[in-house]
Amino acid sequence: MHPTSAYAAPAADQPLGPRTIQRRNPGPHDVAIDIRYCGVCHSDLHTVRNEWGNTIYPCVPGHEIVGIVTAAGHEVTEFKPGDSVGVGCMVDSCGHCDSCRAGEENYCENGFTGTYNGPAIEGGHTLGGYSANIVVDDKFVLHITHQDNLAAVAPLLCAGITTYSPLRHWRVGPGKRVGIVGLGGLGHMGVKLAHAMGAEVVLFTTSPGKIADGRRLGADDVVISKDPVQMEHRHNGFDFILDTVSAPHDLDAYLVLLKREGTLCLLGAPATPHPSPAAHNLIFKRRQLAGSLIGGIRETQEMLDFCAARNIVCDIEMIAMRDINTAYERMLKRDVKYRFVIDMQTLKDATRSA
Amino acid sequence: MHPTSAYAAPAADQPLGPRTIQRRNPGPHDVAIDIRYCGVCHSDLHTVRNEWGNTIYPCVPGHEIVGIVTAAGHEVTEFKPGDSVGVGCMVDSCGHCDSCRAGEENYCENGFTGTYNGPAIEGGHTLGGYSANIVVDDKFVLHITHQDNLAAVAPLLCAGITTYSPLRHWRVGPGKRVGIVGLGGLGHMGVKLAHAMGAEVVLFTTSPGKIADGRRLGADDVVISKDPVQMEHRHNGFDFILDTVSAPHDLDAYLVLLKREGTLCLLGAPATPHPSPAAHNLIFKRRQLAGSLIGGIRETQEMLDFCAARNIVCDIEMIAMRDINTAYERMLKRDVKYRFVIDMQTLKDATRSA
Repeated sequence: MHPTSAYAAPAADQPLGPRTIQRRNPGPHDVAIDIRYCGVCHSDLHTVRNEWGNTIYPCVPGHEIVGIVTAAGHEVTEFKPGDSVGVGCMVDSCGHCDSCRAGEENYCENGFTGTYNGPAIEGGHTLGGYSANIVVDDKFVLHITHQDNLAAVAPLLCAGITTYSPLRHWRVGPGKRVGIVGLGGLGHMGVKLAHAMGAEVVLFTTSPGKIADGRRLGADDVVISKDPVQMEHRHNGFDFILDTVSAPHDLDAYLVLLKREGTLCLLGAPATPHPSPAAHNLIFKRRQLAGSLIGGIRETQEMLDFCAARNIVCDIEMIAMRDINTAYERMLKRDVKYRFVIDMQTLKDATRSA
Repeated sequence: MHPTSAYAAPAADQPLGPRTIQRRNPGPHDVAIDIRYCGVCHSDLHTVRNEWGNTIYPCVPGHEIVGIVTAAGHEVTEFKPGDSVGVGCMVDSCGHCDSCRAGEENYCENGFTGTYNGPAIEGGHTLGGYSANIVVDDKFVLHITHQDNLAAVAPLLCAGITTYSPLRHWRVGPGKRVGIVGLGGLGHMGVKLAHAMGAEVVLFTTSPGKIADGRRLGADDVVISKDPVQMEHRHNGFDFILDTVSAPHDLDAYLVLLKREGTLCLLGAPATPHPSPAAHNLIFKRRQLAGSLIGGIRETQEMLDFCAARNIVCDIEMIAMRDINTAYERMLKRDVKYRFVIDMQTLKDATRSA
């Protein structure tokens, strides 16, 4: 084990602060990564504050990690020191269930190991990317080929794959009309990716202030979802709608926008349920209400390569590690366009000067 | 127009009773049918009592109709006097929308015309199968090839196709494990059809008294859905679940039984919504909650032929027309195995003797 500087929450009701944690020494299949940037996901905040009731402390969140390989175990063939790499929401899975064998480790029947707050193979619980370095099994490390804006690549590891995977699964592409509900960290990636896949993209937002941004990001049209006339005009018009809003809201308003056999896919799990959708909105057009969770490792690499080929990155605001608690407060007010990313050099500099 | 004896409800709070109605004279594309039997669907009762708030009176229900062709218009090529035929829930649709052109008239974008309580082309509203004869456009008439038990074929026109269509759409067959929720008119056909398609079939029922019947009808196993231990044992085990229960109930109990990418399909629209399903039960296994509504004409013919080839019919209890109001009360108490069918000779005899 070796000590590593990090930012951790000691308890649900306390802010994140500096803490030295231990990382395992790389085993034969491990990759040691010097972390350069880490995106800030809303899940980080949920976990830090124990809003899902399962947090183990101290908690070091962060699962949108990019960095440079510093060491690789002798069985590692795919990575070498100096490589630009990424780590997303998972660092392990059972490897033998149907889902793992299908390359869908995100749906591991035995539960994948989260990059933070999961069971660590070296004992204790996993600690995430708000830290100077991390050691990860090579099967869960991704190649990053577009290196000129590494910070803006970081959120692809969660926000990117979480939107890419369902868009691919439900075959979004040319000739399809796709709705994206909400323009936050996930939604802005949904707009970019669905547009890049060749679909007609309509953004649904409650904020008239987001119309211009929605169009800039790739939406062909923007509908103000609070306006019943605009919504009515869109009935029965969509092949697929990706709903990135995790606060409870009216799902029927979106179900009725789907064509026959269209799918409304939820990405967020609200703390209290959405109002119950009306069965007849499913029955009368054979529509589907579905959900999707991140993506498998193979698909995450595919997404990174897709984005690299098209120069797609996230719209980010860079912050220093010490500003993370303020960033959380701003995130709660949706005051971010569209993802905070921590410059991990600021953690290393602070540690050195301390 | 010509007069026809029928049973009609004059208002929501009054029982059905004898009434003479008018049928149009057959046009060039029409088929005139002497009705022999008509199944009793729960939708009949909902409509008679105006429980969906849209009933036009007098109301003559009945959309599980079998009979013999007595006349065919000069443009009709598929039917001739003496043929055994069926009419289901639809007697018309727009014919030009995407759904109609795809042979899915049941999802007609402009709304199909119900066999009863829909807009009649001759003016007024359509009047259903609780009557001595009916005149129907040939596009909505089905061939019946297994004629030795015509009465038990009648409910295939609604209960049969309503379960057959989703089982086909979600590719139920050998190697698939399928759940059927509820053993009523729809459920007992779901069990028979899923079994005939080669799937492993598990019936979910609240009634221990239905275990033996479930197995007789084709279920490989029967789970008492009120028993949490039995239900827990079945988690993550199903490719597809067909939920035939229209009373509000806990959908999460069935969502968690689905494998990754499994679908729970609702057939009933409750008057008050089901408790809201938890989004995480969809998200964590990319499951789907869907709905399905009867089937198209082409698929209804396919279902009738499938059943004829395998000698599949409904389990029925035959009643006289005059006993329909009592049958409704028994249906509300679920006191029927598994479908009432009206012997229309009893209407004709009563009319003659009156």
